[in-house]
Amino acid sequence: MSEKAFQDHYPENVSHCYGCGRLNPEGLQIKTFWDGEESVTRYRPRDCHTAIPGYVYGGLLASLIDCHGTGTAAAAGYRAEGREMGSEPSLRFVTASLHVDYLKPTPIDGELELRGRVKAIEGRRVTVETTVYAGGVATARGQVVAVPMPKSFL
Amino acid sequence: MSEKAFQDHYPENVSHCYGCGRLNPEGLQIKTFWDGEESVTRYRPRDCHTAIPGYVYGGLLASLIDCHGTGTAAAAGYRAEGREMGSEPSLRFVTASLHVDYLKPTPIDGELELRGRVKAIEGRRVTVETTVYAGGVATARGQVVAVPMPKSFL
Repeated sequence: MSEKAFQDHYPENVSHCYGCGRLNPEGLQIKTFWDGEESVTRYRPRDCHTAIPGYVYGGLLASLIDCHGTGTAAAAGYRAEGREMGSEPSLRFVTASLHVDYLKPTPIDGELELRGRVKAIEGRRVTVETTVYAGGVATARGQVVAVPMPKSFL
Repeated sequence: MSEKAFQDHYPENVSHCYGCGRLNPEGLQIKTFWDGEESVTRYRPRDCHTAIPGYVYGGLLASLIDCHGTGTAAAAGYRAEGREMGSEPSLRFVTASLHVDYLKPTPIDGELELRGRVKAIEGRRVTVETTVYAGGVATARGQVVAVPMPKSFL
């Protein structure tokens, strides 16, 4: 894995996202890295992130899958262009659509691992499929279709 | 609209959800009501719920759509049985799948309105379609497939 997370390369003015912005002190501040062809995020839910007691809230899983997906899309975009992440011009993706299948309840008492793969790059659209593991067991699977952020935001 | 929200009828032991539990002090504590055939939730995002500055984080919208959907499914389940919400046996739904299409950026500086409709009741599965409005403009549309919570949790 590389030293800096994908999100640590985001331009400062678009680093306030609740899910993945390093400049949002109240947010989740997820960190994503390559592990070969897969992207990996590890996150430990807070006690408040409960659904029914003992299990993780599905909205948190959707949020993690969302930002893991846009981060993976950005990293894949740089890789496809043969550029170092963070080099100019900046690439930053937003979510066009998000789909999550909840396979089984996700225990809250441990670190979650998200593993993603780029399923397709079609023009500007990048599709990332991500599985959430709790204790090595797949508990949710999601898909993000990401598109580049309008240049006016960068 | 009725006086008590759907979520105010949930049994106490399953009222800790981050999105809709009235007993989760750090959570979103959404409140959903019938408005004729539609279910309505109003929610004002917190300042921290940002995506890019000025706009709402997509993970929050997914979370709102999720709990709005499971709440609507529960209310629809009681209605289909001709029972008052909160009467025994308890009905409480969890999410099997969640899909969100982000139509346009959602401004963060105002109250959001979610309006949902039951699209299908197939056996135990209830499908709810929800649109998010910001200042009267539809900015996201989502679908939740909800299934009853296992009785062991109730």
